[in-house]
Amino acid sequence: MTEKSKILIIGGTGYIGKFIVEASANAGHPTFVLVRESTLSDPSKSSLIDSFKNSGVTIIPGDLYDHERLINAIKQVDVVISAVGLAQTQIVDQVRIVAAIKEAGNIKKFYPSEFGNDADRSHAVGPAKTVWATKAQIRRAIEAEKIPYTYVNSHCFAGYLLPTLAQSGVTAPPRDKVVSLGDGNAKAVFNEEHDIATYTIKTVDDPRTVNKSVYINPPGNIYSFNELVSLWEKKIGKTLEKVYLSEDQVLKNIEESPFPHNLTLSILHTVFVKGDQINIEIEPSFGFEASELYPDVKYTTVDEYLSRFV
Amino acid sequence: MTEKSKILIIGGTGYIGKFIVEASANAGHPTFVLVRESTLSDPSKSSLIDSFKNSGVTIIPGDLYDHERLINAIKQVDVVISAVGLAQTQIVDQVRIVAAIKEAGNIKKFYPSEFGNDADRSHAVGPAKTVWATKAQIRRAIEAEKIPYTYVNSHCFAGYLLPTLAQSGVTAPPRDKVVSLGDGNAKAVFNEEHDIATYTIKTVDDPRTVNKSVYINPPGNIYSFNELVSLWEKKIGKTLEKVYLSEDQVLKNIEESPFPHNLTLSILHTVFVKGDQINIEIEPSFGFEASELYPDVKYTTVDEYLSRFV
Repeated sequence: MTEKSKILIIGGTGYIGKFIVEASANAGHPTFVLVRESTLSDPSKSSLIDSFKNSGVTIIPGDLYDHERLINAIKQVDVVISAVGLAQTQIVDQVRIVAAIKEAGNIKKFYPSEFGNDADRSHAVGPAKTVWATKAQIRRAIEAEKIPYTYVNSHCFAGYLLPTLAQSGVTAPPRDKVVSLGDGNAKAVFNEEHDIATYTIKTVDDPRTVNKSVYINPPGNIYSFNELVSLWEKKIGKTLEKVYLSEDQVLKNIEESPFPHNLTLSILHTVFVKGDQINIEIEPSFGFEASELYPDVKYTTVDEYLSRFV
Repeated sequence: MTEKSKILIIGGTGYIGKFIVEASANAGHPTFVLVRESTLSDPSKSSLIDSFKNSGVTIIPGDLYDHERLINAIKQVDVVISAVGLAQTQIVDQVRIVAAIKEAGNIKKFYPSEFGNDADRSHAVGPAKTVWATKAQIRRAIEAEKIPYTYVNSHCFAGYLLPTLAQSGVTAPPRDKVVSLGDGNAKAVFNEEHDIATYTIKTVDDPRTVNKSVYINPPGNIYSFNELVSLWEKKIGKTLEKVYLSEDQVLKNIEESPFPHNLTLSILHTVFVKGDQINIEIEPSFGFEASELYPDVKYTTVDEYLSRFV
């Protein structure tokens, strides 16, 4: 059996990063996490940092802006996974990771922070358009430097959208009324966060995924908004009132809302109106579907997930 | 009568900027707006640009990153108002405006993009903390360069929060259930966007506001969440179900939500849990309240605003 790659995760205390750290350690990869000094002293992060340490994860103090520490961290591993967030300038500042990987010269694969829709095949508008354009720009920087990569298009975070059926401002799936952006027929994919992390780590030492995109589209997780609501209605034995906003109305709302609400809306627009998660014909020249690559992974289906709230 | 100052607005096509452009033109100030080339060719902005032109506003193509055009625009006016948005790096990139104003040497007052809570007296956590820290950093840059300023703390945008009673994901004020962040007793201020713009423009040629903060806290717009719900209940003649989230639960939600939902939540936390809009003792050494400075302004009250939805 070949030795498992050593993995450095940047952004490992963030929303999706913490699941990736856990999956990496559980899969037996020597796992390292670059953590900002300010995060190390943040009381709200202390139990997470402790759980990392208990899992045998090595914490490396540092950040994107401390080049020397970044290089030293990179030199200790084989693979770098970035899970930096959309806030502030972190996506664009991944050019610093690209430069450090180029300089270090030892990295056999880099994962830029994606974990959403395919940045190269997006029909987003408004602020979401800028986000995906920036992610695409980072992809081009990686390719220009000839750094081997995998792009993980993991689509919707189930834990963020399913507990509310994408209705923000509520604390449980609605039992009276739902608002649909568009006609509710565009398909989307809702993946449980642990599963996203498991699939991501599976690709690390898989030669099929070098310089490819991996789309996480397990068949049990593909639902249109209407199908999602219908599934929920069956579970609770009740029909909900449905309000449909036209695409024009959604675009108007994006245009007229202040940040960050316009970003949230424009992300939901690309998912639920444009169907950008599932309107891509995946070809072996550029990518693979994760549940086909790893049929052994027992993922949580949307059906199972929603049953938790009945 | 003294001549009205010539005003340049940067970010004039944005959420609050467009109201400021309109108020400036209506008040008889020669009004100039710096507009990015990409915005000038954006079909969704064309009717706004046309309405500016019809109001006699001068459109100047340019942006923060084109230093020469920025300097030329600044040299044509007396006062610069920035209304750049929270997205991307625009708040921090206002250092470019500060540098250009310093170099141009002709500006008698600068308004950095505030239009929210007082950046120097914030109890924000999470991503909102970063936003206000960045705004405070821009204030320090202005003061260091000895550029005369006014900071406009305009608090909540009524048009964003009142139509839904701060319940995102809904399209009208709820008639069944509301969710309160915290106990609902912290006071906040809800100002109609036209009024925010009117008060802002009133301060331009008012010597009392030089190097001061102006707080827009008209007495008819100060409500706790509970008072707001109670006012709405009276209007519709129905009692709503109330769900109260503890501050610990709100902090946990901020911690566990992906961006930008964590930013939205952390802004609502500082408003509705911390009461940061109204817990400041305004002293003449640093600021004034707008409706006291300009008692002649007939502002839209929260009561009037909510009546639109009955």
